[in-house]
Amino acid sequence: MGRDLSALFDPVSVAVVGASDDPAKYGHAIAAQAVRADGRRPVHLVNRRGGTVLGRTAAPTLSAIGEPVGLAVVCVPAAGFESAVDEALECGARAIVAITAGFAETGDAGRERQQAVAERVRAAGAVMVGPNCLGIADNTTDLFLASDTFTPGGIALLSQSGNLALELQLRFAPHGLGFSRFVSLGNQADVTLVDLLADCARHEDTRAIAVYAEDFADGRAFAEAAAVAGKPVVLLTAGRGDASARSAQSHTGALTTSSDVVTAACRDAGVQLVATPRELTVVLAASTGPRRSAGRRVAVLTDGGGHGVIAADAVEAAGLSVPEIGAPARERLREALWEQSAVANPVDLAGMGEQDPASYATTVAELLAAEEVDAVLMTGYFGGYAASGGGLGGGGTALADGEREAARLIAARQHAIAKPLVVQSMYPDSPSCRTLAAAGIPVFDATEDAARALAATAADGPAPGIAPLPRPASPLDETGYTRIRAALAAAGLAFPAAREVHDESHLLAAVAEFPGPYVLKALHLLHKSDAGGVALGLAGPDEVLAAFREMRARLGAGAYSVEAMADLSDGIELIVGVNRDPRFGPVAMVGLGGVLAESLRDVAFTLAPVPAGRALRLLRSLRTAALLDGVRGRPPVDVAAAAAAVETITAFAAAHPEIAELEVNPLLVGPRGALALDARAVLG
Amino acid sequence: MGRDLSALFDPVSVAVVGASDDPAKYGHAIAAQAVRADGRRPVHLVNRRGGTVLGRTAAPTLSAIGEPVGLAVVCVPAAGFESAVDEALECGARAIVAITAGFAETGDAGRERQQAVAERVRAAGAVMVGPNCLGIADNTTDLFLASDTFTPGGIALLSQSGNLALELQLRFAPHGLGFSRFVSLGNQADVTLVDLLADCARHEDTRAIAVYAEDFADGRAFAEAAAVAGKPVVLLTAGRGDASARSAQSHTGALTTSSDVVTAACRDAGVQLVATPRELTVVLAASTGPRRSAGRRVAVLTDGGGHGVIAADAVEAAGLSVPEIGAPARERLREALWEQSAVANPVDLAGMGEQDPASYATTVAELLAAEEVDAVLMTGYFGGYAASGGGLGGGGTALADGEREAARLIAARQHAIAKPLVVQSMYPDSPSCRTLAAAGIPVFDATEDAARALAATAADGPAPGIAPLPRPASPLDETGYTRIRAALAAAGLAFPAAREVHDESHLLAAVAEFPGPYVLKALHLLHKSDAGGVALGLAGPDEVLAAFREMRARLGAGAYSVEAMADLSDGIELIVGVNRDPRFGPVAMVGLGGVLAESLRDVAFTLAPVPAGRALRLLRSLRTAALLDGVRGRPPVDVAAAAAAVETITAFAAAHPEIAELEVNPLLVGPRGALALDARAVLG
Repeated sequence: MGRDLSALFDPVSVAVVGASDDPAKYGHAIAAQAVRADGRRPVHLVNRRGGTVLGRTAAPTLSAIGEPVGLAVVCVPAAGFESAVDEALECGARAIVAITAGFAETGDAGRERQQAVAERVRAAGAVMVGPNCLGIADNTTDLFLASDTFTPGGIALLSQSGNLALELQLRFAPHGLGFSRFVSLGNQADVTLVDLLADCARHEDTRAIAVYAEDFADGRAFAEAAAVAGKPVVLLTAGRGDASARSAQSHTGALTTSSDVVTAACRDAGVQLVATPRELTVVLAASTGPRRSAGRRVAVLTDGGGHGVIAADAVEAAGLSVPEIGAPARERLREALWEQSAVANPVDLAGMGEQDPASYATTVAELLAAEEVDAVLMTGYFGGYAASGGGLGGGGTALADGEREAARLIAARQHAIAKPLVVQSMYPDSPSCRTLAAAGIPVFDATEDAARALAATAADGPAPGIAPLPRPASPLDETGYTRIRAALAAAGLAFPAAREVHDESHLLAAVAEFPGPYVLKALHLLHKSDAGGVALGLAGPDEVLAAFREMRARLGAGAYSVEAMADLSDGIELIVGVNRDPRFGPVAMVGLGGVLAESLRDVAFTLAPVPAGRALRLLRSLRTAALLDGVRGRPPVDVAAAAAAVETITAFAAAHPEIAELEVNPLLVGPRGALALDARAVLG
Repeated sequence: MGRDLSALFDPVSVAVVGASDDPAKYGHAIAAQAVRADGRRPVHLVNRRGGTVLGRTAAPTLSAIGEPVGLAVVCVPAAGFESAVDEALECGARAIVAITAGFAETGDAGRERQQAVAERVRAAGAVMVGPNCLGIADNTTDLFLASDTFTPGGIALLSQSGNLALELQLRFAPHGLGFSRFVSLGNQADVTLVDLLADCARHEDTRAIAVYAEDFADGRAFAEAAAVAGKPVVLLTAGRGDASARSAQSHTGALTTSSDVVTAACRDAGVQLVATPRELTVVLAASTGPRRSAGRRVAVLTDGGGHGVIAADAVEAAGLSVPEIGAPARERLREALWEQSAVANPVDLAGMGEQDPASYATTVAELLAAEEVDAVLMTGYFGGYAASGGGLGGGGTALADGEREAARLIAARQHAIAKPLVVQSMYPDSPSCRTLAAAGIPVFDATEDAARALAATAADGPAPGIAPLPRPASPLDETGYTRIRAALAAAGLAFPAAREVHDESHLLAAVAEFPGPYVLKALHLLHKSDAGGVALGLAGPDEVLAAFREMRARLGAGAYSVEAMADLSDGIELIVGVNRDPRFGPVAMVGLGGVLAESLRDVAFTLAPVPAGRALRLLRSLRTAALLDGVRGRPPVDVAAAAAAVETITAFAAAHPEIAELEVNPLLVGPRGALALDARAVLG
């Protein structure tokens, strides 16, 4: 169920410790906000000099308040932080909002200090947000403990940046979006992003959760919580690039995770990933609406050819399709529209809207009713007739009235239809567009935003989810090739016959055990292939022996392996690896192996363990997936066997937390089965 | 020099034929605009019913005006179009702006009609824009012949869409961008995009040329004109996707060209490609400014960590880099800034800006002065102190004054510095940001726009340019394998030894001429590889003979080829093709060949012919270019030989306009040289 945060979001009373009359101090801004909700619950201001703050008597200490405090905002210099928290706990505080900075973000000593405080908070049965945070707000309980006012609405914003919250507030307004809650995450010494996510998932008045986080804390738990949130979770990521990873680390002392891993975890959990505040706003505007598309087929409606083709390109660039409209709908449109109107897709009114604005409404209705259409994008001038009172040809007030009536018609009909309609208009603030927006139809001023919004409403089916970690198996204490090979074979992974050998007599005995051709590997080398420690295609005992002598002379004595050489002719080499991420735990990578692997980097990531069905979809998502089905007359390979091997390998790695890295490369997949030709593991 | 369009853009007098008092008619809107410039040159209104229009006497016919007409806007129904144009020419018109629609966009009959008119216009020594256009405007000569007013400025807009021009007008305003000229292209029956581009390139008051075109007319001439324009040319493309190509075709009857070809031609010509009106505006805002970056290294300055890392990601996503700042600049910043400010890159004032706004100016100056920085992006709250009079902590008017002073300092210093500074602000309309904008510093409200703007200012060196088409060689009349092979070999392309054979005795004679192993090909099949018409690795005469018998039994009698088999072991298979595009002429494709070619589609395009130096850069631009240098211990291949082969093949194709398609696949590139293993041509 997660932690109970009711003491944080709906405390019985509030005290601001460090409240100030000095407008340059943060304790002034917080206090000014806090007292706004005085009617809902008692709000006390504490200033060590006593006197008055904001015209009311300030208590010199928390204890001087003389009654229990539910939540304490601690806004004092770092030197006095611990004693302020201790005093708050003594006064019965069940929640602390720790504004004070100078802890984990300054180094290890600061991290230790905040950990000690967090432990005392937890021992007292309380919760603490921060330190180094900018406050919290809950519009649903009239709790205003941040320096700014947030417009009420359905978005819970969990953010590691205060300025971003301000930008989002500005961006949300034109879309009618507002905040149910705002939490500045700070250093997450006690209450973490995961705790807050889980609580906002349970919070009835929160329709969607927006997250800006540089530090995921327990990333896997974040993904797991998001996967079961039951409402949209949108993540504004930072640290995709080199520089931002560098900065995030110095900014919050956060351990950053590669963007591949974050992307994979979000896709697994159904979290929508965005790169900028604008994109976050667009996705929220679309995904907090009531309508979802059942597929990715978009009909584009325009009143001018240019907007139509540009929108169609943008829709396709956003990963959706703009298919031709089927004959029945085309015929109905043909009847309803002008001769010069285009009734394919994009549908282009081609001037008709200007003569007969009702045609916008008719066309939207026909398109939404068409079976082959999952969503509609209307783009261009609509809104301009009533905004500018004219249009290109100057149509006057009759045209403006007609447009407003069309907007009302579209809005009225939209309520009965489950498919999304998204609008791009040159006049998003026009009366007609405001009518649409009021009916829950997202309106944007830019084509690419409308296309992105449609992509956000397009269902991809349920997210794959996060497979639970298996119970740890008894740990391996060494990961030499022979050991890891045996362990994986025991788990069910197929390998060619092989024997570890150390001298010539062992070698010859091994060769007698199975037929050639053979492969000889120098096991005692870390990068045996690069060092010339692999000899392929050795026909019989003589060739094996010659290769062994040559290799030992060059590479020294040690463990060697003689193996049956697999038939590579109709096979494809895959690479399957599992890395243990400090935030997200075991992460699987599946990709094309072989000589092109490095330059193509055709790989897909997902959290491990990976069930076979998921592995299959992952393999199919590779750019070179066509190879699996056989190209140029080759037979298709056994993809099911490859997927089963991925399940075996990733489940094994997930059950062995002591393994930092596991790699099977190549995994040879042929027409009949998959065979691991090499494996390598590193203990963490 | 291109066509003289002075009669179009600065006519001695103007007549609007079809001028009307009916506000629902386009002839009303045009006439209302046209008369605005009455002081500059006579403007006559023509309405066949005579009477008055816009309160002035309308002539019933052009001839009734009684004096020569310089330019006639023809805005009459299609039925009267020809006679109106003829009358205008009789009255001495040197330029026609043909608004009337119903020509090429309606089908072949309409295309023939407009061609006949265009011929009469040209025969009279006049020029015509349209038909099916929305008019033109030239703010530098007070010529207003479109339905809308365009704010004056330095952008010439050549557009096939009127609504898009209106959207751009709205988007340009906040960036202080305006129009030198606007031309609605219409059907380009006489004056084409290329004519207009060349004229705007010569037009002194035009600083940049923006193009929205669905039909490029002569695409190669467009690219050639753009390459020598001497000012930024920015192209808003349509038809990148399937649906938009379908629509553009029906909208304008245009022959569309694949987006690969348009992209290649633009890159060759140095044309900046954009996908949406917003992106067009951002690129123009950046590229009409005075400053260019010498490289792609960007320093990011923020006042809050979130904005910094998000901007750094956006900058890297835009193809630029955010390198670490060198020690000298870092030390200077360390001295100038707070202890908690981050002085890496992003540089994060971390609250200092709020206490001491001068730190913004100091930091911008230090970053612009740093040798390792080519451009600076400032992002976050700047602008908000003077806009909201406070900031997060509520700093009051002193803070607002300090911010305004910092803006003045930044603006003043920027004049002396050649490197671009681009700003993202939550308050782009604030007094401080307006001060920056007035100094030519582009200001955007969104991070991704600021990053895109920086990318637009980053010089990539001069564009490759368009190589001239060679003089046509004497045409080939057949393109059988043996013929095309001989022709390419004569042009200098290396092939393995080969003989065309038709029976067994020829076959055995041929085998005796060069050593094996051999390849046998069934030349009489179009897709010989798929049909089992290629046998590889035949050791000697016996094997060749057996393969020949087997193949002939299966595939029938015809032309076969016996060839020396090239050593494939250390080679890479490339594919080199040339296609003749209806708009852009011969277009070369260079890519990775072999079994992965289709699924990877790792190909690069450029206009043919391709000089070897350009071919080399093209090969290096492939995703799999690393293969050229040898991976996994393979020797590097002879890239220079591959580039020379590309030059030979593309020059050959360019000299043979009768060839619609030429493909050398594979071109085997080994450590020592390149060898064409197969070639295929199709006559157009």
